[in-house]
Amino acid sequence: MPGSLATKLNFEPSPPESQPLMAQRELKPENEKQADGPVPTGRASCPHRARARFLKGVSYFSGDMALLAKWMEKQFFLLQLLDWVLRGAAQVMFVNNPLSGLIIFAGLIVQNYWWALNGFVGTLFATVSALILRQNRGAIAAGLYGYNGILVGLLMAVFSNAGNWYWWLLLPNIFLSMMCPIVSSALASINSRWDLPVFTLPFNILVCLHMVATGHYNHHFPQVLIQPRTELPNITWEEIDVAKLFMSIPVGIGQVYGCDNPWTGGIFIISLFISSPITCAHAVLGSTIGMLSGLALAAPFGAIYFGLWGYNCVLACIAVGGMFYALTWQVHLLAITCGFFCAYLGSAIANIMSVFGLPSCTWPFCLSALTFLLITTETNKIFKLPLAKVTYPEKNLSYFWKMKKQEKLDEARKKEEEQQKAIEEAVLNEKLQLSLDLSAAQEADVTQTATEPETQSEGRDTGGEPTAENFPTEETLANYV
Amino acid sequence: MPGSLATKLNFEPSPPESQPLMAQRELKPENEKQADGPVPTGRASCPHRARARFLKGVSYFSGDMALLAKWMEKQFFLLQLLDWVLRGAAQVMFVNNPLSGLIIFAGLIVQNYWWALNGFVGTLFATVSALILRQNRGAIAAGLYGYNGILVGLLMAVFSNAGNWYWWLLLPNIFLSMMCPIVSSALASINSRWDLPVFTLPFNILVCLHMVATGHYNHHFPQVLIQPRTELPNITWEEIDVAKLFMSIPVGIGQVYGCDNPWTGGIFIISLFISSPITCAHAVLGSTIGMLSGLALAAPFGAIYFGLWGYNCVLACIAVGGMFYALTWQVHLLAITCGFFCAYLGSAIANIMSVFGLPSCTWPFCLSALTFLLITTETNKIFKLPLAKVTYPEKNLSYFWKMKKQEKLDEARKKEEEQQKAIEEAVLNEKLQLSLDLSAAQEADVTQTATEPETQSEGRDTGGEPTAENFPTEETLANYV
Amino acid sequence: MPGSLATKLNFEPSPPESQPLMAQRELKPENEKQADGPVPTGRASCPHRARARFLKGVSYFSGDMALLAKWMEKQFFLLQLLDWVLRGAAQVMFVNNPLSGLIIFAGLIVQNYWWALNGFVGTLFATVSALILRQNRGAIAAGLYGYNGILVGLLMAVFSNAGNWYWWLLLPNIFLSMMCPIVSSALASINSRWDLPVFTLPFNILVCLHMVATGHYNHHFPQVLIQPRTELPNITWEEIDVAKLFMSIPVGIGQVYGCDNPWTGGIFIISLFISSPITCAHAVLGSTIGMLSGLALAAPFGAIYFGLWGYNCVLACIAVGGMFYALTWQVHLLAITCGFFCAYLGSAIANIMSVFGLPSCTWPFCLSALTFLLITTETNKIFKLPLAKVTYPEKNLSYFWKMKKQEKLDEARKKEEEQQKAIEEAVLNEKLQLSLDLSAAQEADVTQTATEPETQSEGRDTGGEPTAENFPTEETLANYV
Repeated sequence: MPGSLATKLNFEPSPPESQPLMAQRELKPENEKQADGPVPTGRASCPHRARARFLKGVSYFSGDMALLAKWMEKQFFLLQLLDWVLRGAAQVMFVNNPLSGLIIFAGLIVQNYWWALNGFVGTLFATVSALILRQNRGAIAAGLYGYNGILVGLLMAVFSNAGNWYWWLLLPNIFLSMMCPIVSSALASINSRWDLPVFTLPFNILVCLHMVATGHYNHHFPQVLIQPRTELPNITWEEIDVAKLFMSIPVGIGQVYGCDNPWTGGIFIISLFISSPITCAHAVLGSTIGMLSGLALAAPFGAIYFGLWGYNCVLACIAVGGMFYALTWQVHLLAITCGFFCAYLGSAIANIMSVFGLPSCTWPFCLSALTFLLITTETNKIFKLPLAKVTYPEKNLSYFWKMKKQEKLDEARKKEEEQQKAIEEAVLNEKLQLSLDLSAAQEADVTQTATEPETQSEGRDTGGEPTAENFPTEETLANYV
Repeated sequence: MPGSLATKLNFEPSPPESQPLMAQRELKPENEKQADGPVPTGRASCPHRARARFLKGVSYFSGDMALLAKWMEKQFFLLQLLDWVLRGAAQVMFVNNPLSGLIIFAGLIVQNYWWALNGFVGTLFATVSALILRQNRGAIAAGLYGYNGILVGLLMAVFSNAGNWYWWLLLPNIFLSMMCPIVSSALASINSRWDLPVFTLPFNILVCLHMVATGHYNHHFPQVLIQPRTELPNITWEEIDVAKLFMSIPVGIGQVYGCDNPWTGGIFIISLFISSPITCAHAVLGSTIGMLSGLALAAPFGAIYFGLWGYNCVLACIAVGGMFYALTWQVHLLAITCGFFCAYLGSAIANIMSVFGLPSCTWPFCLSALTFLLITTETNKIFKLPLAKVTYPEKNLSYFWKMKKQEKLDEARKKEEEQQKAIEEAVLNEKLQLSLDLSAAQEADVTQTATEPETQSEGRDTGGEPTAENFPTEETLANYV
Repeated sequence: MPGSLATKLNFEPSPPESQPLMAQRELKPENEKQADGPVPTGRASCPHRARARFLKGVSYFSGDMALLAKWMEKQFFLLQLLDWVLRGAAQVMFVNNPLSGLIIFAGLIVQNYWWALNGFVGTLFATVSALILRQNRGAIAAGLYGYNGILVGLLMAVFSNAGNWYWWLLLPNIFLSMMCPIVSSALASINSRWDLPVFTLPFNILVCLHMVATGHYNHHFPQVLIQPRTELPNITWEEIDVAKLFMSIPVGIGQVYGCDNPWTGGIFIISLFISSPITCAHAVLGSTIGMLSGLALAAPFGAIYFGLWGYNCVLACIAVGGMFYALTWQVHLLAITCGFFCAYLGSAIANIMSVFGLPSCTWPFCLSALTFLLITTETNKIFKLPLAKVTYPEKNLSYFWKMKKQEKLDEARKKEEEQQKAIEEAVLNEKLQLSLDLSAAQEADVTQTATEPETQSEGRDTGGEPTAENFPTEETLANYV
């Protein structure tokens, strides 16, 4: 299953001294998945059958489209590459689904042709560079080397001050996209020690690198001017526009790809829903949390309408709410907390970065999500999936439930065994008691003929240690039973 | 011993792939402690007895008050919580003692009611949040989840530009206090790999987060204005005020909690002395080092008088001087070096943070202490205690001495055993030699009747290998001895 | 071999929970080295002999001068210290050679007497401090504790605004040089987990510390004024000076030590060539890459001529190109990529640091080289040497080749063994078949007289399972025997 999200954001926990390897592709669980997927075995009346057929159809393009990925393995290279690029485009939102990727590209085209082109170039070259560098094929096929590339390409175009269709921009775009796998691999070597993904850290590093290396005052690659706030923003609560406030929710989702068009945001919501409804719900929830936080911290309304408070919370909510933790109510609350924390952090990082003329990128998401993934707690309601087992929230949940079931079964079996043991022990003790009584009677008769093992067990008995009774010598029993 | 500092700043070294667990509470050593505490067995004359009784009394409220902690375990929840909050207040100075905590709160009230209230709210909610998140109960009871909370609460009030009794401030105070255990737990997952404590890093992160997220120009939560230096400060050495310079020593200790009142600083010194005189001495030493460094680096006198050069050095000196290292002369010198390094770093970080409108918090202490705890050296005079064994300097020292004694005993025993062995060997060799001589004599008499084992041992003897002599065959000996 | 670079940039990979120890000195490989060095056994005609003698002579002062290091071990302390200081001076460029160090000091004197003095003081005190702190003697002797010291001393003098011969500067110089081993040791504890060297990170940390702690506006230790760019630089491509552009290549190498004199740069090139031609070639290559990057990113010509774009790339190219990776064509390309990445990063870091009034030091080199050393890939053409085996590129290469040869031999032997096994099996099977045929014939004749081995093999044969043949059931045997 090369396209499986099993290798989501890349790396298996590795023994401390060995190289952090990519999670190996697992072929076996695939067969199970169809069984525990949303496809019930329709063996009842007609409407039931229709529903079953519908769900069967849905399963072909929802989730991680593992069947397509399998089919793709035998196709010719360029088609495979296209699959990987589309998956890479969707992986920004933790979605391993080429259809979602296609829809996302459609959304980008709605926003801006030039940006979409740069995004495509970025994804393509990042994926090719990973191939050249001989990175894990499974991870490449899951789009895990492409998503940083699309963000690098897009955001370089978004923040360029040279205007659209400034073709020279493709040069640094290609160079930095090709650096993505290098930075990813290096970061993974570090993060894998804590079984953590690299998230969009390579993108953050590389785009900030490009922007601050050139800066606003540059002849070749000028960047938009970003400056720190130096006076009180003009906020009058009467002027608030509720419609725009609601619109900021899809805009916030669109801003994950640097897009401020609400239609683009809406298209992205659809692409998320196709692959995983839980992801989609958390994305909307995250954007709402971001908007509320912006109001609470007295942010200028413009920034809130523009979705700048939303996109980090969107990603943080998705990551914590079901993607890397198995979704329980406790984890859901944790995801909401993470959303608020991320919004706070977002404001902080935006203010710090503005000193250097930089946007906050997705640093707030990365840092808050990593913090929340590093937590350890003594409750078993918050279960962090091993990185190699992460796929998409619904499948993660079924993995978690199976694991719990297995645990319960194991416990039950253990209990049964213990009971069995206890019964056997009781029987044994009874026998022993009997033998002792017998021997006592014999002793009373003929004290001189007492054999050694008998007195031994007798001695024990008077000693009153109950545990000693469990180990009667064989001779004792052999003598009487 | 829930209140024991054995779980000081939280975490045991964990095997690389397992979760970093809290140090488990050890119940056994408790019994020893009373014995090796400062309570000598008074069996001599009357004044000796009085002294013994006095020391016995002292032991009830000095150190980590382990007896109280034990007694508390059976009390009802709110009283326990109060104990934990008080211990949390004192843990900022690495002191696990509710009495010290109480005195510290008194000092805070002397300084400012509103600040004290915020500090209390911070400690309370941080502790409650740790309970909700199911963190290790022993660590909570030792106040290890409270000390970041009190600092967050206090310093948010100190740096708020909205004036005292601005009640809305309690909202972010509660939110960020409740984030403390999350950030602590996450950082501990990282630091535990090197067996390092998290110090006040969560506080630093969260207060900086709040201050830079809102900033000076904010409608809801404005911060005081901090700006980088842009001209030569006006320093004339004739104007120096020696009295104020001396006063800066207690003020520096007070500044650990953001207090500039010298009386508050004095009260804090008392609270330290109650629990651990070594800690107290290093606190005063640290504050002095900071003041001297300020003079050396030509800092404005105002900042020195205000204690801003002292508080980081206070903490760094305490941490290195006896708390995490066993106190020897070498470690004492290391603590002084760490103090100077910390002062240097303090100036650097203050200048960097001022660019973002931030104070330096206790970043300099954290970074310098972590650096000095990461050192490895080939001398055994600098002994870093395992994190799970850290309590307070006096007890750490007794642990270190015991360990050394044990080592010496082991060595002595080893030597004795070796000597014993050598003697036995010598005896054996002598016997062997005798047997060989005998056999030689016999051989000289009757050469034909020589048995196999004899010739064998003879052969060995002529071979001249001394090690082979240690394994004479039993027959050889049996034949002649 | 105390002076061997085997302990280059310090530390062996250590088991996760143990202390990161210095790489132990290996004495045995030394004898081999002379054999596989550039000294061919001259047994042919006269010119051949002359050449051999010449190469023999070269081997005395090229490479890491291991013979001198061995001879030094028996000399008196001050001479040893001088050797260590000279090696420390050269270690900035990863060269473990006292002659190179001497030439480098000559180059520094050509540049500026005062700077050279500060550099010497820095190296000396850093080395002495490492001795006091009981760091690994082998690492000290290889100059691994000196190179940060020389940079600290030099750059503090270079960036001081108090002018030359401001003697007070020696005070912070000595203090910070003596802090070098502490910071080195602490960083090594962290980096050794990934088997990474500490590079010049201690120097970067300490010089930035000093500069930002005092700043431009300081009475005692003022620094030169560095400010961020706030307007478009004036670049007209007609004004470009090609001669200066070419001169920037040696100047870039000189800037590793903060020197802008092209003669000094030239002297440094010679010192590199003496020890290792590969290092020298990559240094020149790196400086060229930096210059080209500067032009590509529209940097002001002045900065390019001044060598500011070169020195980080010089170090990065040396580190990746043969020093920590075994030099293959793939690694050579990687080194070039690293050079370009480093130049990009250099511009970014310079812009960020200028906000704090700081120069970029060698942060770009450290970060880019660490990133490229953290990469993992599935190809065996990119081989990262274990840190304890790193010496100089030529020797690293011979180590790599030997390893590969050994691997091939092992494989060949394995194959041979397998073939041998296969042949033996075939023979065995034939014998077995023969015996079976025999037994079948015998059975046909006299079924009762079947002998044990025959029936056994018969039983096996009918079972048909080849593995089962080794475990004949007892019943089978019981039936016939």
